[in-house]
Amino acid sequence: MAKFKLTLEYDGSRYAGWQLQKNERTVQGELLQAAAKIFENQPVEIYGAGRTDAGVHARGQVAHLEIANTRLSPEQIKVSLNDELGHAINILHVEKAHPKFHARHDARSRSYTYQISKRRDAFGKKYVWWVRDTLDLGAMRNAAARLEGFHDFRSFGVNEKEGQSTLVDLDRVEIREDGDRIYIHITGSHFLWKMVRRMVGVLVEVGRGKMTGLDVETFLKTNSNEPARYTAPPSGLFLERVDY
Amino acid sequence: MAKFKLTLEYDGSRYAGWQLQKNERTVQGELLQAAAKIFENQPVEIYGAGRTDAGVHARGQVAHLEIANTRLSPEQIKVSLNDELGHAINILHVEKAHPKFHARHDARSRSYTYQISKRRDAFGKKYVWWVRDTLDLGAMRNAAARLEGFHDFRSFGVNEKEGQSTLVDLDRVEIREDGDRIYIHITGSHFLWKMVRRMVGVLVEVGRGKMTGLDVETFLKTNSNEPARYTAPPSGLFLERVDY
Repeated sequence: MAKFKLTLEYDGSRYAGWQLQKNERTVQGELLQAAAKIFENQPVEIYGAGRTDAGVHARGQVAHLEIANTRLSPEQIKVSLNDELGHAINILHVEKAHPKFHARHDARSRSYTYQISKRRDAFGKKYVWWVRDTLDLGAMRNAAARLEGFHDFRSFGVNEKEGQSTLVDLDRVEIREDGDRIYIHITGSHFLWKMVRRMVGVLVEVGRGKMTGLDVETFLKTNSNEPARYTAPPSGLFLERVDY
Repeated sequence: MAKFKLTLEYDGSRYAGWQLQKNERTVQGELLQAAAKIFENQPVEIYGAGRTDAGVHARGQVAHLEIANTRLSPEQIKVSLNDELGHAINILHVEKAHPKFHARHDARSRSYTYQISKRRDAFGKKYVWWVRDTLDLGAMRNAAARLEGFHDFRSFGVNEKEGQSTLVDLDRVEIREDGDRIYIHITGSHFLWKMVRRMVGVLVEVGRGKMTGLDVETFLKTNSNEPARYTAPPSGLFLERVDY
């Protein structure tokens, strides 16, 4: 049995998300199809560190590829997969992995960047969230600091499985301004479904002056449906990297 | 009569070029349609500083808009046009212009950037030219310097009109490297049709070691069909600015 660690980027606007689906073009589906061609229909498993939603991009998604055996080197796998894949998925790096390596379970942390544009942008429709209101970055940074740490993020996530823990260790929520862009960098142990986009949505509400840092703290203490109402659009979200 | 100077950006991958065409979506066509709505079908002229080809982008195209009369302020024109336009065209700035101002005839210089990627790029298909060969930037810079100045660029252009001058004053051909990207910045008095893309194509051939700086000088002295064979793809080209 051979296992490889793949690092890849993709333009999420062209796919119905990471996860394999019938009748939908997904990143995992495209990768499996490309792998089937290269490995001549030997059974292949491809498993990603995180299941990005439709429209969400990746600059450094990680996946493992498992196959009974292959004579291809990691570099040959990279080149062959890229030759089969469409232009919006690009394998950046392939390396041999330990047979027990698991892209999802072994990940220690994930880093996302959310891109906001302060202005209409002819190139931005699929890659930013255009927020017309002027945002108070000071208030946003104050609220962001309250999100950092080990908290119950139930109010920000979708509970996928009964009994699943909603405790997340959030290392960093950093807000950076550069010209007409605002970048929100978020790193955490793992993320609940939609959690990043709901945190961004709530931070933007704080920036608009419609919520306070105290509201944000309350969401961490008491379960609330409020953050779900402010889920930021997928277009601005990039999975930057996964660390092991 | 009222005249306005418009500065705008657009994603050229979504249009069949600048110039109005029947049965094709073009930037000029979209602007005229938006203007017709705002000015309630009063006759409007919109004229651009340069006619970018299909797939070529602009970050700072300039156009003039002429109309018999309007009560709208420049800022109102900007906002109203943007409200009517699709997301891939964005008016950056509108100002009142002299009644004799002509976006094309009055332009003193145009600046373009051409973007090359050294690697496959999931986000780059429409915005870069991916060149797989390693390029000798020193040789390219040497050849670029030979292009600068006042020369007959007949070998690089398409002669649109009989008797049209092919003499162009090229201020600057600068090659800059930044990580996986190579940027070629070109500023000149004006450009012949396809001239920028043919210069880039020839410079890349020089970078590949298949042409020399001396070949480039020969193209400036004797008319040649050679540069036309190396026309760079439109995807990497951005009209950056127009100066008056």
